[in-house]
Amino acid sequence: MDKSRRNWLKAGATITATATGVFSGRIFAAQEQQAGTKIESIPPLTGQPGVRLVTYSVGAQPSIGVVLDDGRLLDLKAEAHARHLKLAFDPSSMLSLIKVGDPALQQVRTLSEHPRSTLLSLETVRLLSPIPRPDRNIYCVGWNYLDHFEEGQAVRTDNKTSTLPAHPVFFTKGTHTMNGPFDPIPYDAANSTSTDWEAELAVIIGRTGINISEADAMNYVFGYSAFNDTTERDIQQKRHGGQWFKGKSLDGHGPMGPWIVTAAGVKLDDVRVICRVNGVEKQNASYQQMYFKIPRIIAELSRGMTLEAGDIIATGTPSGVGFARQPPEFLKPGDIMETDIVGVGVIRNEIKPV
Amino acid sequence: MDKSRRNWLKAGATITATATGVFSGRIFAAQEQQAGTKIESIPPLTGQPGVRLVTYSVGAQPSIGVVLDDGRLLDLKAEAHARHLKLAFDPSSMLSLIKVGDPALQQVRTLSEHPRSTLLSLETVRLLSPIPRPDRNIYCVGWNYLDHFEEGQAVRTDNKTSTLPAHPVFFTKGTHTMNGPFDPIPYDAANSTSTDWEAELAVIIGRTGINISEADAMNYVFGYSAFNDTTERDIQQKRHGGQWFKGKSLDGHGPMGPWIVTAAGVKLDDVRVICRVNGVEKQNASYQQMYFKIPRIIAELSRGMTLEAGDIIATGTPSGVGFARQPPEFLKPGDIMETDIVGVGVIRNEIKPV
Repeated sequence: MDKSRRNWLKAGATITATATGVFSGRIFAAQEQQAGTKIESIPPLTGQPGVRLVTYSVGAQPSIGVVLDDGRLLDLKAEAHARHLKLAFDPSSMLSLIKVGDPALQQVRTLSEHPRSTLLSLETVRLLSPIPRPDRNIYCVGWNYLDHFEEGQAVRTDNKTSTLPAHPVFFTKGTHTMNGPFDPIPYDAANSTSTDWEAELAVIIGRTGINISEADAMNYVFGYSAFNDTTERDIQQKRHGGQWFKGKSLDGHGPMGPWIVTAAGVKLDDVRVICRVNGVEKQNASYQQMYFKIPRIIAELSRGMTLEAGDIIATGTPSGVGFARQPPEFLKPGDIMETDIVGVGVIRNEIKPV
Repeated sequence: MDKSRRNWLKAGATITATATGVFSGRIFAAQEQQAGTKIESIPPLTGQPGVRLVTYSVGAQPSIGVVLDDGRLLDLKAEAHARHLKLAFDPSSMLSLIKVGDPALQQVRTLSEHPRSTLLSLETVRLLSPIPRPDRNIYCVGWNYLDHFEEGQAVRTDNKTSTLPAHPVFFTKGTHTMNGPFDPIPYDAANSTSTDWEAELAVIIGRTGINISEADAMNYVFGYSAFNDTTERDIQQKRHGGQWFKGKSLDGHGPMGPWIVTAAGVKLDDVRVICRVNGVEKQNASYQQMYFKIPRIIAELSRGMTLEAGDIIATGTPSGVGFARQPPEFLKPGDIMETDIVGVGVIRNEIKPV
């Protein structure tokens, strides 16, 4: 481990190298509020060329930047200023960058080569969700790994469907579920004590479209992020007549990040979706096990319904969730939920009483 | 009928007085795009004091205004200019007005008394949805009139629930469902031919809050509007594993308007929820028949989930929807769906092939 990597590590973390080459840490003491980020390593991008786009704050104002392969952070506004370049987008808004699209990405690539401005250390900033305030609810796909469908069939209390789906299951999460990559997940025992993990690959839409064909769908992908569709199982399954929305939509129950990797930077067949709780692996599946792949999801979702640049689609979770275990396991205060989307990034969230 | 009311009527409409005193028209020829509005009468407000707030356009820019009891339209920006009053809100954005809250409403009331600017005729403007671009998905309540729950039980193909709900059923409609009060509903036979009506009272939230108590809930209501949770039944019930989101979320399938009546202007116990198709009454129920009343809905929805000023809650539809009829009835191109929320307003939408 080189010195710069060691510098990203937080005191109190023990590190183990996993088979994927990504370092994973069990955090023994989580902080009240992250002072800097908890990025342990910068995994290489598996596709070419791609960039890691972050939304971060030093003070109150959000900024967007690029995390370089060496882990340093390029402030896009400062770099544009140093080069006397007029940005085509608002450098405080990832949605602005995404909506401007290709001209913005071309500027980002230009600015990322041979930076002239002072690069920042990730430890000195706070990473926010790449899209802190989505323009609409987060689209989600249910039962999209066959093993997860089957584990759920065995035990779920709203056991309603026994045949494999012919179309993806869609539902939404409220916009206030959006949470930072290292921020705590609020836990309110008065409301629910069945908080469950669902590690997912999130797709960020890059262009507006309706009735998008499967063949054209990948042209609508701006990039990818790590997401956890954190769920209150009792509310999802029992409280609201079988509609999942509310049990999926408690505030802060949708951490995302630590960045968006632009589409070309991710080789989907190499992506793995992993969840660890207190360092113990609970979920681990390959993109290749995904039942409805991204082109099909985009095509089905956009039938008669406009998708817009900046929209977020959480593509479903593999087996290994807590409620389907024997006995069932749920997250408790102090637990660390780690969502590792190999080839994209790792986020880590503590369960924390409100 | 006095002359000014007659002037609001469109050629080609036959008018019948209903028991509620609201005039209802069967439109024989709908226009490609409304030139002016199709307001047939201005029903008196049942509460005091309230105002009717509209979002409208003359050219490309939206404006917000007040519809006076005599049917004339007060442009808030022009009136503020005439009085040298600096507005506390952006007069092109209803969300801005709602978020500013009481100081904005006080200005609106002041401006509405003895206007000095030139009042507009509703016929010269296009009414948009009062909130053309909601900040998040539209919250919806399912099965909230017992007769609708029972009619659905008898025939629905995803017949999953047989006990009366202990909690409201919540789901969402995508933001692109939002449609103007007199705009056409897109119809795409390649996607679905089971378009169904659901007349509903919409509640507009006026303050941000979480874990709102039932006792305090009505203090969070900004106002009310007429809404139709237009639904593609096959997509809702059959295509997506029992989750309703997609069948509820096709573009334009959520017309709202013609205005927001501020909370004090509506006496809820007098509200009726009526739907007519081509002038034939299909639904007609009282607010008193609503199972989970508005305070309970707000309390349950806000448990652990922040509601924000400008959020929209569609409170559920009574019996009489098309799919539950024998034989089932669905909307076809050319049909006129009229949503009459007595004490709030009437909207009218043609089903129109895309």
